[in-house]
Amino acid sequence: MGWREGYIAVDWGTTNRRAYSVNRAGTVEQAIEDGLGIMSLSPEGFDEAVRALSDRLGDAPMLLAGMIGSNRGWKEVPYIPCPAGAADIAAGIFWVEPGRIGIVPGVAWSEGRGADVMRGEEVQALGALGRLPPDALICHPGTHSKWIVMREGRIARFRTVMTGELFGLLKAHSILSPQLQQQASADAAFAQGVSEALAGEEPLAALFGIRARHLLGRSEANGASYASGLLIGADLRAGLNLHEGGSIGLVGRSDLRALYAAALASTGRNTIEVDGSEAFLAGIRLLTETL
Amino acid sequence: MGWREGYIAVDWGTTNRRAYSVNRAGTVEQAIEDGLGIMSLSPEGFDEAVRALSDRLGDAPMLLAGMIGSNRGWKEVPYIPCPAGAADIAAGIFWVEPGRIGIVPGVAWSEGRGADVMRGEEVQALGALGRLPPDALICHPGTHSKWIVMREGRIARFRTVMTGELFGLLKAHSILSPQLQQQASADAAFAQGVSEALAGEEPLAALFGIRARHLLGRSEANGASYASGLLIGADLRAGLNLHEGGSIGLVGRSDLRALYAAALASTGRNTIEVDGSEAFLAGIRLLTETL
Repeated sequence: MGWREGYIAVDWGTTNRRAYSVNRAGTVEQAIEDGLGIMSLSPEGFDEAVRALSDRLGDAPMLLAGMIGSNRGWKEVPYIPCPAGAADIAAGIFWVEPGRIGIVPGVAWSEGRGADVMRGEEVQALGALGRLPPDALICHPGTHSKWIVMREGRIARFRTVMTGELFGLLKAHSILSPQLQQQASADAAFAQGVSEALAGEEPLAALFGIRARHLLGRSEANGASYASGLLIGADLRAGLNLHEGGSIGLVGRSDLRALYAAALASTGRNTIEVDGSEAFLAGIRLLTETL
Repeated sequence: MGWREGYIAVDWGTTNRRAYSVNRAGTVEQAIEDGLGIMSLSPEGFDEAVRALSDRLGDAPMLLAGMIGSNRGWKEVPYIPCPAGAADIAAGIFWVEPGRIGIVPGVAWSEGRGADVMRGEEVQALGALGRLPPDALICHPGTHSKWIVMREGRIARFRTVMTGELFGLLKAHSILSPQLQQQASADAAFAQGVSEALAGEEPLAALFGIRARHLLGRSEANGASYASGLLIGADLRAGLNLHEGGSIGLVGRSDLRALYAAALASTGRNTIEVDGSEAFLAGIRLLTETL
């Protein structure tokens, strides 16, 4: 019952879940995407949820990655320290059923006081490598954006920026909320926000301009775009620091890639986009090859 | 029935209200502080609420400042543009009852795309001037911190930073919430946050360290202090830019002053603290002297 006969790969996040059955040729035969993230299940519900996945996707060994391995997930799997390559991560797989059902560990970085953690993005980072120059800095945008420095095929260090979460908080709960309800896009207001943040503007100061202009009768064309530009510009400022020069591998969901690609274009850094699902599947394949 | 015979001064904010009866000697005879901010009243409720204040504080002319003059308050009073001194602001008073009950206007700053507004802090800024060197930059910490550049006794320009609001959002709604429930104080964790932010660290990146250290079993001694230090450090970075060198007039509530004074001490800028209520009363006095 080897992994070369085919397997099931599951990217199990906080609010969403993507599962794929992969055949012996390495092709996806079936894909499931749904809202059954870990927060929608009780701790006792995972056994059955995983069995239900097997029923739908076939009797094959399974690797699960992402928040499923966190303390709110199925089993808490310890983080692998940096530097972490495919072999290090595979060695840390927690086997719920030996050789059959495994949970991929997250990766942690520590240096002095500095600390960071990720769960799920490490698989995409490994998988994206085949599409990127070896010195690429990987940017994975999201609720918690990750900037990942790869060295000789391993995750050397990384940095999380709370960009997506802050945008969500401002949209849902802040005084700016009424001005942030449009869809953000890579428009002129977005470019303005990016350029101000990259020029060193403090986002928390610039953001209040949205409210002031509204009260003075000269609102932004799209306040959400401008706010998104400011926050993504600040995100870039934090991330690009990790690795001067060189290409950026932009890995993730297409809607977020569009915004980050537009912001990165204004920095002059060469950007190579990699679809997040494709990177995930390639990363899981790398892990299975070590098993 | 002149203002020199005594008056009532009301600082009416979003969630709180402070009202004072001042006698002909300029002394506060009675003070009321309660939670009847503008959000606790319906638009029709203000007439009666103001009458009730008169009943309690005596039959004297009244000046009201703060969010009471906003579109969610009693009457919307247009902003006075910068540069704005006591005479400019007094000329913009909206008289609900001519010469008897007036609402002090807020101040707006505009330059190209840049825009900012305040309501209430302008009175404190004018009032604090008597205690400060003429070139002082005024810092008024709060939900929306204000940095106010005074020139020849007038508000020349100012900048709002959403520091307090962001801290509140992170504490109430973010993934960091469990680590932010202690009281923030000017302790070692606070100093660490201030120093990182002043060194150019991106607060949205550094904040995630609170979560990472927690997951790795080495939580901050006080996560709220560290987060507060990061945000106040970024606030200072935005504000101190407005005016290199010179003293800082730190005006406002004593609990916030304590945090900002500690952060400012680490920048080497001379700081002079002025109590917010005292500044408010002195500012209202300046306005009445022009009436």
